Amino acid sequence: MTLNFFFNPKGVAVIGASRERRKPGHVIFRNFLENLIAGQFKGEVYPINPKAERILGMPCYSSVLELRDQIDLVVIAVPAPIVPKVLEESGKAGAKGAIIISSGFSEVGNIELEHKIVNIAHKYGMRIIGPNCVGIYDAYSGVDTIFLEVSKMVEGAPVLATPRPKPGKIALITQSGAFGATILDYMAGSGLGISKFISHGNRCDVDEVDLIRYLAEDEHTEVILIYLESIRRGREFFEVAREVTKIKPIVALKVGRTSAGARAAASHTGALAGSDEIFDAAFRQSGIIRAEDTEEFMDLAKVFANQLPAKGKRIAIITDGGGLGVMAADAIERLGGTIEKFSETILEKLDKLKKTGILPEFAAIGNPIDVTGVATAEMFAKSIEIVGQADEIDGILLFPLHHIPTLEADYVERIVETIRKCGKPVIACDVGEAEMAKMVRTKFDKFGIPAYPTPERAARSMMGLVRYGIYLVKTGVYEKYLERKCQLLFQKWNFTYSKS
Amino acid sequence: MTLNFFFNPKGVAVIGASRERRKPGHVIFRNFLENLIAGQFKGEVYPINPKAERILGMPCYSSVLELRDQIDLVVIAVPAPIVPKVLEESGKAGAKGAIIISSGFSEVGNIELEHKIVNIAHKYGMRIIGPNCVGIYDAYSGVDTIFLEVSKMVEGAPVLATPRPKPGKIALITQSGAFGATILDYMAGSGLGISKFISHGNRCDVDEVDLIRYLAEDEHTEVILIYLESIRRGREFFEVAREVTKIKPIVALKVGRTSAGARAAASHTGALAGSDEIFDAAFRQSGIIRAEDTEEFMDLAKVFANQLPAKGKRIAIITDGGGLGVMAADAIERLGGTIEKFSETILEKLDKLKKTGILPEFAAIGNPIDVTGVATAEMFAKSIEIVGQADEIDGILLFPLHHIPTLEADYVERIVETIRKCGKPVIACDVGEAEMAKMVRTKFDKFGIPAYPTPERAARSMMGLVRYGIYLVKTGVYEKYLERKCQLLFQKWNFTYSKS
Repeated sequence: MTLNFFFNPKGVAVIGASRERRKPGHVIFRNFLENLIAGQFKGEVYPINPKAERILGMPCYSSVLELRDQIDLVVIAVPAPIVPKVLEESGKAGAKGAIIISSGFSEVGNIELEHKIVNIAHKYGMRIIGPNCVGIYDAYSGVDTIFLEVSKMVEGAPVLATPRPKPGKIALITQSGAFGATILDYMAGSGLGISKFISHGNRCDVDEVDLIRYLAEDEHTEVILIYLESIRRGREFFEVAREVTKIKPIVALKVGRTSAGARAAASHTGALAGSDEIFDAAFRQSGIIRAEDTEEFMDLAKVFANQLPAKGKRIAIITDGGGLGVMAADAIERLGGTIEKFSETILEKLDKLKKTGILPEFAAIGNPIDVTGVATAEMFAKSIEIVGQADEIDGILLFPLHHIPTLEADYVERIVETIRKCGKPVIACDVGEAEMAKMVRTKFDKFGIPAYPTPERAARSMMGLVRYGIYLVKTGVYEKYLERKCQLLFQKWNFTYSKS
Repeated sequence: MTLNFFFNPKGVAVIGASRERRKPGHVIFRNFLENLIAGQFKGEVYPINPKAERILGMPCYSSVLELRDQIDLVVIAVPAPIVPKVLEESGKAGAKGAIIISSGFSEVGNIELEHKIVNIAHKYGMRIIGPNCVGIYDAYSGVDTIFLEVSKMVEGAPVLATPRPKPGKIALITQSGAFGATILDYMAGSGLGISKFISHGNRCDVDEVDLIRYLAEDEHTEVILIYLESIRRGREFFEVAREVTKIKPIVALKVGRTSAGARAAASHTGALAGSDEIFDAAFRQSGIIRAEDTEEFMDLAKVFANQLPAKGKRIAIITDGGGLGVMAADAIERLGGTIEKFSETILEKLDKLKKTGILPEFAAIGNPIDVTGVATAEMFAKSIEIVGQADEIDGILLFPLHHIPTLEADYVERIVETIRKCGKPVIACDVGEAEMAKMVRTKFDKFGIPAYPTPERAARSMMGLVRYGIYLVKTGVYEKYLERKCQLLFQKWNFTYSKS
């Protein structure tokens, strides 16, 4: 694991550690110190600043060369012209990795300076993340070089501004630090857990290829998200991705798709965006799931972290609101899935439910199944059971809208057992932004059944599972993947049981 | 205003008022009583139930024919077979309108019974909303026939389950009651205000044509939302819509677009969905803005309730995160708008801002304007001022991401004045689901500048303003519309000032 020293360093020096509370060098040093005190960061951290004696109580060093202890990692937050000098010293001090936060390199045309630091790194066998980046957040090891403070003061009180998500299974690689911060914010606020966050900025050394290769082997990572404006080593990237996607899903948000977007990207990271059609094809061929927009990027992260891929595209819909069933059917078909009328085998079983009074006589059962406004948990459970057993269905979309008067408050708990046993990917949806809608979605989420606030987002997430599943089948690794994933989810569900 | 007795009745009888707290007839009667006690519903309400003496303390009547006082409206929640009898009595008692909540009519094939009630209504000159519907919620008059309780009990405590939105400018017509409930839930939870909600179910009498005609003249309604699985009188609907859209925007969510969706719709409301391409064209020709999905339906409602339509499709982007600018540019272009490089006139002015140190030297100014990670409120304000004055720009997308360390907590307040003066539609975006992101969006919303949580949703909403604006220009009513709308928004902003 060649990049491990970045994520699990024993000794870290923060070069440019500052006493001014809002300066990047201060925030980064404080992050390490706080995480060390909290028992999360297990290494040692040293502030480097020739002008300070102590920072936050810790003795300060004027150079890494003064340190007696071994350091693996340096985090550099000094003005660009000074970077070569401190990097040289870091090499001499035996650092294996440097995260260079400082900007003022190729992104403003200063290409020579960037070459210079790459050469210094090569000389000492060091690797660089950056420059012009936010760096790393590792939710497990407590490495946090994000210089954006967790809270901002608003009218005298702290307000969560750039929260760090809890530990989880989703890794994020981002070319844009600002976009990375917004995703951390989204994930933390939505209860999505993260494994590793890497903002690599100008990626003068460590790039997407290195990172997806590393994350493929990372035990904490189950889903790899990647935000791209351009790709540094296109051919190698897609070659490596083709292997990685057989083990873990990669979800890409590739921007700069239009001429205006490409022009904006060029002025942002100086990178040429390339033809969008070619990217589209390359993503598809290498099994990368491309997200259309920010929302799908996050929705797919959630679904892949929690659900099995679907073996095919034949989806069943079970709803208590007819209109929502129509909308979901539209969305699935428009995205290439199918909502086929059930076979006689299923229809007979459902008809029997009607005859035994479990389903209302006027329920629609063709697919969608509409248990209507007299819905109960039992109606959902029995319908899921029947559809879940059928070979003709690859995934189930569930719309147990809480507004129905006959649905008791504990209906989520009462159907979750059946959902787990059904052995197919199941996604839930409840629409609304008031208390109970949020409560219902959170419950489903906690039980490992990803829940979404609109039928279209639920359908789109299901189609993510379909796209990935079909790729796995095509490449002959579906069964192997499923076995591993089932084991993971089973562990997770056991955990959820004991907690709920 | 032919339908006024539905929304502002002096006397209302609830036929089928029940003593059982969860029955529709009980909830509806209780809604009226609660709103009467709260001083919101200004009429009188009478419970009709031959088996009860009192309901919630009020003396009960066995028939509307027993009432001495005049009634305008009856709300009917009795089993379908009894509906003709009570409707006949209502006609004799002089009711002008009947909202028939009861199901068991054409939606289950009982077409004859539905014909029968239509004939009875005609005989007495009554109008019917329904049957098989949720009925009406009027946030101003307190008429509320929604039989879904506001709260459900969860572990002994009430939880908001089907909240009613506060009074506002958005009206909703829906063929699906369940979908209607989800939208009320979304609006209430998102702080969107409503004028009138109408779920008309089987719409055996009052239909979309009557309702958009009525809402066009309704003083509280500024935006008309309509959820459709089918249209009852297609030709008339689009003829009337063509006139209404010159005064107020109509946003349609038409489902049953695919073969699976159409099949689901047929089993839901028994209606044939029709060719989606034909609907698409008809919507476009009549100036109706079609929403692609639930989220756009709500996003457009919000933008039309708060912003001016755009005169053209030339959009400017101002951001403090380069990546977000790229994504917004992509989204605008993919939806048919343009992000053109600014003219020399604008560029010179922006360049002057750089020279005077107001914008950083490395800021991108081509369009998008990227004020970068050293953003301040002043940088945004000055950029908005320059772009806002330019004839070459029709609308502005703003991305003042709060994560930037240099952005002080009060930046929204500090740029809102400039935004208002710029005289162009402005939409804001801040991404994240934690405290500060939500706070920033809520602040913008309260100041009348609609804010969205992703760049793509912000762009899509802007393109809604563009689509509508171009239609208004084409039909020659843009200036007239703008004058009226400016006056409305100005009033609103004054109001916001005094409250914030």
